[in-house]
Amino acid sequence: MSLLTVGSVAFDAIETPFGKTDKIIGGAGTFIALSASNYIHDQRIVSVVGEDFPREMLDLLESKGVDLAGLQIKQGEKTFFWSGRYHNDMNSRDTLITELNVLEHFDPIIPEAYQGVEYLMLGNLSPQVQRQVIERLTVRPKLVAMDTMNFWMDIAMDDLKKTLSMVDVLFVNDEEARQLSGEYSLVKASKVIRSMGPHTLIIKKGEHGALLFQEDKVFFAPALPLEEVFDPTGAGDTFAGGFMGYVAATDDYSFENMKRAIIAGSALASFCVEKFGTERLQDLTREAIDQRIAQFVALTDFEMVQTV
Amino acid sequence: MSLLTVGSVAFDAIETPFGKTDKIIGGAGTFIALSASNYIHDQRIVSVVGEDFPREMLDLLESKGVDLAGLQIKQGEKTFFWSGRYHNDMNSRDTLITELNVLEHFDPIIPEAYQGVEYLMLGNLSPQVQRQVIERLTVRPKLVAMDTMNFWMDIAMDDLKKTLSMVDVLFVNDEEARQLSGEYSLVKASKVIRSMGPHTLIIKKGEHGALLFQEDKVFFAPALPLEEVFDPTGAGDTFAGGFMGYVAATDDYSFENMKRAIIAGSALASFCVEKFGTERLQDLTREAIDQRIAQFVALTDFEMVQTV
Repeated sequence: MSLLTVGSVAFDAIETPFGKTDKIIGGAGTFIALSASNYIHDQRIVSVVGEDFPREMLDLLESKGVDLAGLQIKQGEKTFFWSGRYHNDMNSRDTLITELNVLEHFDPIIPEAYQGVEYLMLGNLSPQVQRQVIERLTVRPKLVAMDTMNFWMDIAMDDLKKTLSMVDVLFVNDEEARQLSGEYSLVKASKVIRSMGPHTLIIKKGEHGALLFQEDKVFFAPALPLEEVFDPTGAGDTFAGGFMGYVAATDDYSFENMKRAIIAGSALASFCVEKFGTERLQDLTREAIDQRIAQFVALTDFEMVQTV
Repeated sequence: MSLLTVGSVAFDAIETPFGKTDKIIGGAGTFIALSASNYIHDQRIVSVVGEDFPREMLDLLESKGVDLAGLQIKQGEKTFFWSGRYHNDMNSRDTLITELNVLEHFDPIIPEAYQGVEYLMLGNLSPQVQRQVIERLTVRPKLVAMDTMNFWMDIAMDDLKKTLSMVDVLFVNDEEARQLSGEYSLVKASKVIRSMGPHTLIIKKGEHGALLFQEDKVFFAPALPLEEVFDPTGAGDTFAGGFMGYVAATDDYSFENMKRAIIAGSALASFCVEKFGTERLQDLTREAIDQRIAQFVALTDFEMVQTV
């Protein structure tokens, strides 16, 4: 099986209460692909960078099995750059700088060799670009998942709804689910959102875990209680990447297997926040991931007995 | 086994986005005892009401196995009264009226017949009153649990710390855990708080579930995703009551059994919020509770397999 990720490959500069970085590698596509590579070894990416993007990072992605034929390198242009500062609670942040650069006129060209890809993950991008990708795939993938943000709900809701009607799985956080649906209760919100297209909704709640909704079924995955969240940047993309990597590698998108995929994604996200940017994701071993997953199993494991 | 609850038996008047009530029955002691009665059938209560408190509610408590010898009825005085208004998100509220009345000079007298009680639940009250109860029990119960609030941290922190040093299990919400410990991370907060006395800490996170900390172990219990939270008043006390009722009835305060007790408490709390005040708690059947618990089991159940 193969997974195609569409998403930004970018530079970030991050300030947290624990420190700040110069320009480091970020972008939804980068986090998704790095995370998914722990499960799926045939990956493709459609994205764009400028000539300022370091060759070493591309080599790293290739070494993890990510085919870069769909990564456009624009000579004379600069890579997308985002800079932000986290508040003391690490749950909210201010955007300091957004330089779209190469993303401003991004045309998501699909290499011919990518046609027939079985799994598609659309990272946060304009809903129009996301839709173009779906339309340019001559065979619809088995499962199409997308992430989006409040930003697109604010400025491009109609476009977003068009794209939503074409996908199977949507990732949003709790506030975005409320904004998109107009419902405060997440149970009600999930019904409204699933009536817009996706049969499956995954609501990311950060330190409070994640909810998976499909038909009349619901699954609640915890987040691992951590001593310290060093940098939350990319945690949501890492979660989605782990999820789609797991689903694609097992070639099983049943509800039962999606639960496992969410645990895999949660485990990977719990690593992501331990260091700045993608640093912690670059050298994970299967053993470390499996140990982390065992912690998730222990965290929610209980057995009711009929003693009273 | 027997459970002694100390806590207010009171009147509440509640406004929510869904409606408002006149004076209805409330109070931490009431919610705890009603909730616990679903598991433990030998209960005692130490509390105080005025002569205005309705006999029918006392009859109801007695019919549920709650001995009322420790419930003082003050002639010529009025019952504690609290009135509050919930905001649209149902997660925050304003207190409109607090009339201490009989609670102002509450002397928690322990009937002789209550000595030797095995389990003690101290509902939210002044830390001084909570401590008096512990000191007046000639034999220390097997397990002493207490609930408290930010209010006491604001005005009586030293007193609170004295009482904390004498208990086994503490219930607080996430904001209170942060205030009490001075740590934002709940993992760090739990270490600080457990160094103050309680070997076990239960952090209530409302719609985000609950965390149980003991030694190096942690358990994460979900909250049931609900279509509608009609009235959250008493949900925390119902949770604590279900927990202590389960622990006392099984006479088992191992970590493994505390996990089950938290699920039992969470299930009972999920009923509590469906109607105003104690209404939904008054006529629960074991079958309804067991069905709700089965929903909790399904909600977090997953099995990792080694397929990738």
